Amino acid sequence: MQEFSFTLLNQYKKARLGIVNTLHGQIRTPAFMPVGTRGTVKAMLPQFVKNTGADIILGNTYHLMLQPGAETIAKLGGLHKFMNWHGPILTDSGGFQVMSLSNLRKISENGVTFRSHIDGSKHFLGPENSTEIQYLLGSTITMAFDECTPYPASHEVAKSSMELTSRWASRSRNSFVKRPGFGQFGIIQGSIYKDLRIESIKTLTELDFEGYAIGGLAVGEGQELMLQVLDYSASMLPENKPRYLMGVGKPSDIIGSVQQGIDMFDCVIPTRSGRNGQAFTKYGTVNIRNSKYKEDNQPLDPECKCEACMHYSKAYLHHLVKSKEILGSMLMTWHNLSYFQDLMERIRNYIAEGKDFDFLC
Amino acid sequence: MQEFSFTLLNQYKKARLGIVNTLHGQIRTPAFMPVGTRGTVKAMLPQFVKNTGADIILGNTYHLMLQPGAETIAKLGGLHKFMNWHGPILTDSGGFQVMSLSNLRKISENGVTFRSHIDGSKHFLGPENSTEIQYLLGSTITMAFDECTPYPASHEVAKSSMELTSRWASRSRNSFVKRPGFGQFGIIQGSIYKDLRIESIKTLTELDFEGYAIGGLAVGEGQELMLQVLDYSASMLPENKPRYLMGVGKPSDIIGSVQQGIDMFDCVIPTRSGRNGQAFTKYGTVNIRNSKYKEDNQPLDPECKCEACMHYSKAYLHHLVKSKEILGSMLMTWHNLSYFQDLMERIRNYIAEGKDFDFLC
Repeated sequence: MQEFSFTLLNQYKKARLGIVNTLHGQIRTPAFMPVGTRGTVKAMLPQFVKNTGADIILGNTYHLMLQPGAETIAKLGGLHKFMNWHGPILTDSGGFQVMSLSNLRKISENGVTFRSHIDGSKHFLGPENSTEIQYLLGSTITMAFDECTPYPASHEVAKSSMELTSRWASRSRNSFVKRPGFGQFGIIQGSIYKDLRIESIKTLTELDFEGYAIGGLAVGEGQELMLQVLDYSASMLPENKPRYLMGVGKPSDIIGSVQQGIDMFDCVIPTRSGRNGQAFTKYGTVNIRNSKYKEDNQPLDPECKCEACMHYSKAYLHHLVKSKEILGSMLMTWHNLSYFQDLMERIRNYIAEGKDFDFLC
Repeated sequence: MQEFSFTLLNQYKKARLGIVNTLHGQIRTPAFMPVGTRGTVKAMLPQFVKNTGADIILGNTYHLMLQPGAETIAKLGGLHKFMNWHGPILTDSGGFQVMSLSNLRKISENGVTFRSHIDGSKHFLGPENSTEIQYLLGSTITMAFDECTPYPASHEVAKSSMELTSRWASRSRNSFVKRPGFGQFGIIQGSIYKDLRIESIKTLTELDFEGYAIGGLAVGEGQELMLQVLDYSASMLPENKPRYLMGVGKPSDIIGSVQQGIDMFDCVIPTRSGRNGQAFTKYGTVNIRNSKYKEDNQPLDPECKCEACMHYSKAYLHHLVKSKEILGSMLMTWHNLSYFQDLMERIRNYIAEGKDFDFLC
């Protein structure tokens, strides 16, 4: 059976070209993971997501545990079968969403007690049950339960939060059921403090996860500071394990982070922006609601091979988005996911050829 | 070039099997036309609509004239190109929507002055510009401008309304630019009064339209009364022209109407119900929101070949619709349109074989 592993194919400066091997298939890195919060990448059928070039998608533990529930998904054959996506799935631990979405949270050493943002019902999430929920979902990549340190945070607060994450990482690792082709990633915290990031990396790498995520970034610190943290953090992480920067990001963030040695990304930007009428193109972003597109018979990008660009004009997309038609969300999402996957493919090609790719954004 | 024509292939009792030939392709009748109000069959790509078995779709003149505007669509190459649907398109005349959707209407002999339901702007729609708008859209089948007589209506009101529709039909016919493969349908009115329906049919058939619609039904009179009107109306219409029952309907309405000699139908039921969580199946309707489907791992209909039934469980659809996910609208619409097209295909097969098909609903 396929072991979970990372193969480094090429390196150009600090940028890495690789393959993550999993039970559910290979992930070409640097990889962008479309977000499928509730067991669906919004407004897309899974085969469309696959056709854009995505190898892996992300699911949200917090949302799925509340609706329809992890036990329900397990009974129905797991998340892959439930949502008809048969490639790799990474699920987050729920920690971030508990803090950002739920009400009346109470954090203790044990975990977080919270009320559902849907119906107010009371729930608990900690390292053990977060790991178990992800097991029930059948996640290809399980994330350790962490506290995403708020930004800004004093050194004292960041240290205490990072240490809690480290203790939770150890408990998450102990709860993880190892199966061939499945993996678990630990999450590095420490805010913008180098000593804390280093300590977090030391503690977590001792737990020998199958990969490492860098958390607590892209939370308001700005791109420059984020890339500074990555500069010293990424290079300290094991070379033979994939590195995942959580919740990132804009094309320029992705490019800068790949240049610091990051392999995996996820972000709602392409899907959410698409539904809101913003398209990403090689020539910059397009706000399709702008009335200047009312009679523009050209596609978003004449060279793009996505469904939207192959068959529809900006005028039609303008009309759909303005009319709040579902097809507008479908086509704009399709285009943006295609743009992000094309970007990743171009990045991979440049790394393979040993060339710079700053100009891509 | 392909002439617009109707070929009667077989008749069983009063039910007709036929083909409408148009510039944009053939329409197998009895036919169900999915509704694409604003230049999109909601939540569906055109190729999906085609794949369900639809030969023709309907567009709404009222909506398209307001947003993005008929001149805009003409500049962009017509409605077929705009929305990437290359089969036949029938557009209604806007008369029905003006009365049901717009504000501050004022009817005169000339037509209807009204305010847009979108921005309150003032517009006018009458036989001449309704026909011209449909010409600008490039409609395969243009509908004559009519007044849909409200129900219930006294004989006096219905007579006066029908006579206005007849005068408007004549003006619509005079405004229609004849082109090979395009057609124009007149609309029979007269409410539930046999003498009025007969008079309407006599007047309109003298105008020699390419087809005839029966309007003013399915507006609250009930199935029994509707079928009674069809019983005497349909048989008076020319045998060599297609007959279209507007805005119908539920599967049992369609079956009953085909048995009275109707060839074409349109209705928002499959698309709107789908978005609202109601699925049509051979075994009856399914309200997918019902909690009994939470762990139901079976598809809506194991024999259905639609995208929803081939790959997704009722539990997943339940989850999507409950979570208000766009994919829920997509898959439920896909299923319902497939159901309606499958129904039409089965009806056509039974007529071809000279068999009864009451049991289909």
